[in-house]
Amino acid sequence: MRMDNSPPRGTRDLLPAAVALRDRAQGAIAEVYERFGYQRIETPALESLARLTGEQGGENEKLVFCVLRRGLPPRLEAGVELASLVDLGLRFDLTVPLTRFYGNNAPALPVPFRSFQLGPVWRAERPQRGRYRQFHQCDIDMIGEASVLAEVELIEATTEALAAVGLGEINVRLCDRRVLSAVAAKSGLVEPAWPALFIGLDKLDKIGWEGVRHELVNERRLPPEPVDAALTTVRSLAELGPHALGSLGDQLPGLSDQVLADLQTTAGALGALAGTRGWSWCFDPTLVRGMGYYTGQIFEVTHPALGSSIAGGGRYDNLIGRSLGREVPACGFSIGFERVVELLGTNLRSETVALVYEADVALTDALEAARGLRSGGHRVAAVPRSGKLGAQLARLESWGFTSWAHLASGGAPPAPPRPLTAR
Amino acid sequence: MRMDNSPPRGTRDLLPAAVALRDRAQGAIAEVYERFGYQRIETPALESLARLTGEQGGENEKLVFCVLRRGLPPRLEAGVELASLVDLGLRFDLTVPLTRFYGNNAPALPVPFRSFQLGPVWRAERPQRGRYRQFHQCDIDMIGEASVLAEVELIEATTEALAAVGLGEINVRLCDRRVLSAVAAKSGLVEPAWPALFIGLDKLDKIGWEGVRHELVNERRLPPEPVDAALTTVRSLAELGPHALGSLGDQLPGLSDQVLADLQTTAGALGALAGTRGWSWCFDPTLVRGMGYYTGQIFEVTHPALGSSIAGGGRYDNLIGRSLGREVPACGFSIGFERVVELLGTNLRSETVALVYEADVALTDALEAARGLRSGGHRVAAVPRSGKLGAQLARLESWGFTSWAHLASGGAPPAPPRPLTAR
Repeated sequence: MRMDNSPPRGTRDLLPAAVALRDRAQGAIAEVYERFGYQRIETPALESLARLTGEQGGENEKLVFCVLRRGLPPRLEAGVELASLVDLGLRFDLTVPLTRFYGNNAPALPVPFRSFQLGPVWRAERPQRGRYRQFHQCDIDMIGEASVLAEVELIEATTEALAAVGLGEINVRLCDRRVLSAVAAKSGLVEPAWPALFIGLDKLDKIGWEGVRHELVNERRLPPEPVDAALTTVRSLAELGPHALGSLGDQLPGLSDQVLADLQTTAGALGALAGTRGWSWCFDPTLVRGMGYYTGQIFEVTHPALGSSIAGGGRYDNLIGRSLGREVPACGFSIGFERVVELLGTNLRSETVALVYEADVALTDALEAARGLRSGGHRVAAVPRSGKLGAQLARLESWGFTSWAHLASGGAPPAPPRPLTAR
Repeated sequence: MRMDNSPPRGTRDLLPAAVALRDRAQGAIAEVYERFGYQRIETPALESLARLTGEQGGENEKLVFCVLRRGLPPRLEAGVELASLVDLGLRFDLTVPLTRFYGNNAPALPVPFRSFQLGPVWRAERPQRGRYRQFHQCDIDMIGEASVLAEVELIEATTEALAAVGLGEINVRLCDRRVLSAVAAKSGLVEPAWPALFIGLDKLDKIGWEGVRHELVNERRLPPEPVDAALTTVRSLAELGPHALGSLGDQLPGLSDQVLADLQTTAGALGALAGTRGWSWCFDPTLVRGMGYYTGQIFEVTHPALGSSIAGGGRYDNLIGRSLGREVPACGFSIGFERVVELLGTNLRSETVALVYEADVALTDALEAARGLRSGGHRVAAVPRSGKLGAQLARLESWGFTSWAHLASGGAPPAPPRPLTAR
């Protein structure tokens, strides 16, 4: 009887061609990040639930796969709380584990520490096309660097990494949470309502200006006057286009000189890089980025072939320190690895030789011939002859072999490999 | 307040030096397996609990981390069974997922399919030195090949992979489950008691001949006469040493000619490889290997620096087919990746330059200088000057930097990198 062999709902098997493509993307990204001095670390897939649900993970905290405690009785008493049965969960991102990792290992790490992570995360989301419950994230973070060196270097390294995987045609958007805060302050909105303003503004791409106003005033019940004032300021900045950055000081007198100077530094670096590498950038006052933990500059990368962003990040100075009980500045940039792989989506095929040996060839002779081809630099798999030759060669090609060599009995060496396409 | 930042019990953080070492081992193994035509696949970390606990996984089935169903009520009624609350589990090996993968994807895969897997598995074992609840396994399997080609090629590929990571000084042990079955049959033991005999014999290394007899007769209550007969046969074969294989036919007339011929083929290949590569091998009638699913030849690799084996495998012709409802021969070889890494345990250090820039150097100039060094092929991280130079250089070296370049203000290019050890 045939069993149900599909993987769990929302997860997937990766076949050899998919793994090869992912490996190539991962290798290209890793090579760039290592060139910038980022060091790869790995943390366990499991973290304590207390850690996973206590770090401003927002909506993601509700999507944790929870793991049952070990050694529980097989039958439960009445009134047991579900929460008491679980202690661990699968990580939903690489930032929460990084904060714990840094807290656990800080004395052994450089200052600043340049971290590189690439690995799976899990979210129990409703499965939909192109979204999986297990997927890879790819993060670099600079921990312990308060200056704008972090922002500028992370942007350079990430855009270079994207170029290395063949995604050079990008647009980088830059904003700053402190600009958004200054807008909110100037509007007269009370500070506890600022997060709601930002969350609403974050939906601008999807629901437009009127939609944002409706959500903030009618659904979230914020007072209309400050909401209108805030939206007007953001809109007028957005309409200034490339000149918005230069007029920030006039429009938002509450912004400190340091914030303005840092934005000018990042803008200058972006301009120089974009000019050399042939991509584009803009200051975008409507960029919010969802996570609650950002404290300074934020950035996002888009690609013309994809509606959503392919990378994003920013400064989060208050997150890492909470693990250590002291202040630790930090800044990170995350590449949407699955989206990048999706964009690459070509058929990668490595040269692999099928050594087709006749039935009367001794096994040891076949393996010896395969060894000989391998020592000549080929990837070789020995395959017994079967059925009609033409049909077998067609099968070999459909399986991903690129060439074949024939081994007849009698001890003669195999002919040099011939391409399967030329048969 | 400082939080508890340790990873969950029995798991660990991997720091950059550890990741670099593991990457190097993984790269060397992957390069060899790809040269033999093995193709890497990936399956999800989660599998259905029904699958994880229904496949002869033996003791491992009791060590599964179980995942709570989504959408359960927060408070439970009386008498709820724990088993009804969970549906998924973290995989405890790579063989169970492979059987499901093959069942799910067989039409798209070559025949035979050469599979290569390297990834994490999870077991809720009592943590102890050197054993972790999350660890990597590294398996190759040939699926769909009934002939001894599979055994011989898997042995060659695996021993070559071990040599590639620097573990050339190995001993390969060979046995066959059908030899063990013939021993049991000849002894007069009823067939349902054979697995108990094998499990007892598997402990020979730890408890000796007397211990094995005691366990089988006194604890497992097998009849003493056939147990003694079986142990005497195994012991006399073991004492024959290199001649055991040649006398199998005489000692165990129940063995088929095919089993003997296949063992001779594998032995011939082992002899040739061992001679060329300078390692050793033996036929060992006491080799059992724990898993219940083996059906033919079994093998194990030991290294003089380690008591336990560093690789093991064998033929398991009845496992894959159960997923598909038809017979599919299969054979596999698994490298104990964590043990291999442990044996390598040296301090790998990649050349990395710290570009030390003075406080009055403009950030953009520092990043420009770093870029220049990178284009010369260096790995470079920009680091601001701080404190006494000697102390800072010592810190840089302790953090893993191998050399440094100084950038003073004034626009001059940095001096060429100098080794930190020569300061």
